[in-house]
Amino acid sequence: MDKKKLVIIGGGFAGLNVAKKVDKSMYDVVILDRNNYHSFPPLFYQVASSGLEPASISFPLRREVTRRCYRGCSFHMGEVKSIDCACKTVSTRFETLHYDVLVIAAGTTNNFFGIADLEKHVFTLKSTPEAIRCRNEVLDRLERASLCSDPERRRSLLTFLVVGGGPTGVEIAGALGEMKRFVLPREYPGISPDDVKVILVEGTDRVLHTMSEDSSGKACEALRQLMVDIRLGQTMKSYADRTVTFADGTTLRADTVIWTAGITGVGFKLEGTEVKASFGGRFEVDEFNAVKGLDDVYAIGDISLAMSEKYPKGHPQVAQVAIQQGRRLAENLNRPDRREPFEYRDKGSMATIGRNRAVADMGKMHLHGRIAWMAWMFIHLISLLGMRNRMVVLVNWIWNYFTFSTGLRLLFRPNRYPLRSYWDE
Amino acid sequence: MDKKKLVIIGGGFAGLNVAKKVDKSMYDVVILDRNNYHSFPPLFYQVASSGLEPASISFPLRREVTRRCYRGCSFHMGEVKSIDCACKTVSTRFETLHYDVLVIAAGTTNNFFGIADLEKHVFTLKSTPEAIRCRNEVLDRLERASLCSDPERRRSLLTFLVVGGGPTGVEIAGALGEMKRFVLPREYPGISPDDVKVILVEGTDRVLHTMSEDSSGKACEALRQLMVDIRLGQTMKSYADRTVTFADGTTLRADTVIWTAGITGVGFKLEGTEVKASFGGRFEVDEFNAVKGLDDVYAIGDISLAMSEKYPKGHPQVAQVAIQQGRRLAENLNRPDRREPFEYRDKGSMATIGRNRAVADMGKMHLHGRIAWMAWMFIHLISLLGMRNRMVVLVNWIWNYFTFSTGLRLLFRPNRYPLRSYWDE
Repeated sequence: MDKKKLVIIGGGFAGLNVAKKVDKSMYDVVILDRNNYHSFPPLFYQVASSGLEPASISFPLRREVTRRCYRGCSFHMGEVKSIDCACKTVSTRFETLHYDVLVIAAGTTNNFFGIADLEKHVFTLKSTPEAIRCRNEVLDRLERASLCSDPERRRSLLTFLVVGGGPTGVEIAGALGEMKRFVLPREYPGISPDDVKVILVEGTDRVLHTMSEDSSGKACEALRQLMVDIRLGQTMKSYADRTVTFADGTTLRADTVIWTAGITGVGFKLEGTEVKASFGGRFEVDEFNAVKGLDDVYAIGDISLAMSEKYPKGHPQVAQVAIQQGRRLAENLNRPDRREPFEYRDKGSMATIGRNRAVADMGKMHLHGRIAWMAWMFIHLISLLGMRNRMVVLVNWIWNYFTFSTGLRLLFRPNRYPLRSYWDE
Repeated sequence: MDKKKLVIIGGGFAGLNVAKKVDKSMYDVVILDRNNYHSFPPLFYQVASSGLEPASISFPLRREVTRRCYRGCSFHMGEVKSIDCACKTVSTRFETLHYDVLVIAAGTTNNFFGIADLEKHVFTLKSTPEAIRCRNEVLDRLERASLCSDPERRRSLLTFLVVGGGPTGVEIAGALGEMKRFVLPREYPGISPDDVKVILVEGTDRVLHTMSEDSSGKACEALRQLMVDIRLGQTMKSYADRTVTFADGTTLRADTVIWTAGITGVGFKLEGTEVKASFGGRFEVDEFNAVKGLDDVYAIGDISLAMSEKYPKGHPQVAQVAIQQGRRLAENLNRPDRREPFEYRDKGSMATIGRNRAVADMGKMHLHGRIAWMAWMFIHLISLLGMRNRMVVLVNWIWNYFTFSTGLRLLFRPNRYPLRSYWDE
């Protein structure tokens, strides 16, 4: 029997787990990704806050697929331009691939809810380059502020607004709070830490609203200890001329707005079909993760939307769901006759707010403080791809912990023209 | 007696050594740099060849100046736009600083010898962002080639031309040779290593012509073992439409040209004076490193030109000269009445060509092979700023040595628009 061609869009947790577990004697597997590396979103905020090198939370996909468990998989770099379900092809800028079975695991990107020009002016944390940029911008503000004599301009330069009280928002706000508390006094004599404002804005009535009330409260406490100004039930309406306008009409001058308030599936048009992405830009799937209305096209991970009684709005968009969906899908592809529906085993969720501060919900158990923080570090460390990365991250964490500092406040900004000329191409 | 204002342009080896050694009870010291970090040029090529993270060969200048030996120094980030020797001021985009004593230690940048459009199309290794870019471009070529069916296009994508047979050229050519030999076969099944051409072009009759004949020969040998095609007595005339034209009229199609053939001082106009940069864009200085024709303006490091009997064309533009000039200048500034002329103590020079291969000249002694390689690693490791960096670099080197691989083949390319919009600003 000749092999089927399996194309997987996305080298994240979801995609890699399909590739790993699927039977290569049944399928020819191609992993497509716009980047040549696998990245680890839970730690983007640490790149943005100068805690880790981007390289240590990224892993070259070609290196990954040389591992035995991937034997029979090949990697192609390219950004998907179009998917044609009638001809069963996926096209990137460089090639057109035929597929027998297609797995869409492309994840999500930022959602600006159509707020005009927001994308141009806010900084985001949904990819490694975005995180690097955020780091650069924050460092740039501090440098400029330390040379700025105009008090109003200075206040604006030193106001860091984080929009969105989810894990990412809480974690980056906490990291900025720590920078204000531990790094500034030592390294920026020109800036009085009191001039630095870190503000966290959340639309609902509590931060981390996917977690327990208990954990939300503890997180708020920890953030307040880091002098983070938390504003609940507040949503942002517009941002122009360095001025944020909120739904209640109040305004705020801030040179730096970090947007973590919304995500949406990476939009693909499925040509030759009527199927469209559902809300949140996610593709509606059945219990086997098959995109509804299509055969041989599956969606897993953040971009999939499997609505059930337990999860009427679909599963949470977290790594665990992606991993478990990837594995289950691979099993089902390996024995099409005996498919089993996907069921999510919730292993809990956690968030960290600076040194020794974290919250974790595991079923009925709610941890916080140092234990939760240790657990958080351990789980993130083992989830990283590559031993080298784990070692380097550990070295950095230990270093940062004992020096109360971060070694990586480096403003790597391409020096004008030559760089852009290529990227413009 | 009130303190003099000492402004140092450049946080490299030269500038930092002045700041460190100068008497802060006599001088108020400001270190000006266009970046917020100190970088380590000798290892840029390892960034470009995916061997090291840029972060591990860079060190935040603010962190550095918190050290005791710098107490009394402050750091300002900014690129110098103009120097006015009449009013004794230095201006950046953000501020204008008055100086009593000015030290120019801004180093050098690429020299394209006026070859049209070269800057747009070649890749260079004179700064961290340039090295990152070079890494990205090389990785990009490999990805494209592995998806390219047109044989001619493919050949061009896989031809890597290195122009300039100095240490940087030799080292990057060697690193590419190793990538071809060890990495490609494993990770790029779509590319046959034989299709990859690494070509090193040098204008003189030997590579490393600042070193001994002996070392040049050994370096050539090592490069040839890595299948690097060395072309001596060959100079490049133009590069357009992906085609290089050499002085002898021959042409070569190559998508990737790495230019290490020329450097020139970072050009400053010294307003209010007749003084101009001399050849190589370097400022002519006397034996005390004072810029000829100016009092209270000094130049040290790569940008200075001190001609003597022993060095009719000035000192070699290497870290050791910069360090020694910085220290001597500081001593002279501390006791203006008993100044001593600068004398360069040559500690030798070295270059490495991949694993276990290096050459080193120390006075009469010429080392090569593994011993030289070990010496090279040791000396570069201890020259790095920051213990954390040394640890991370060591981890990486050990890792790369035993895996015959480099963990950092990561194509971190800013994802279009939002990033550029900032840099364009």
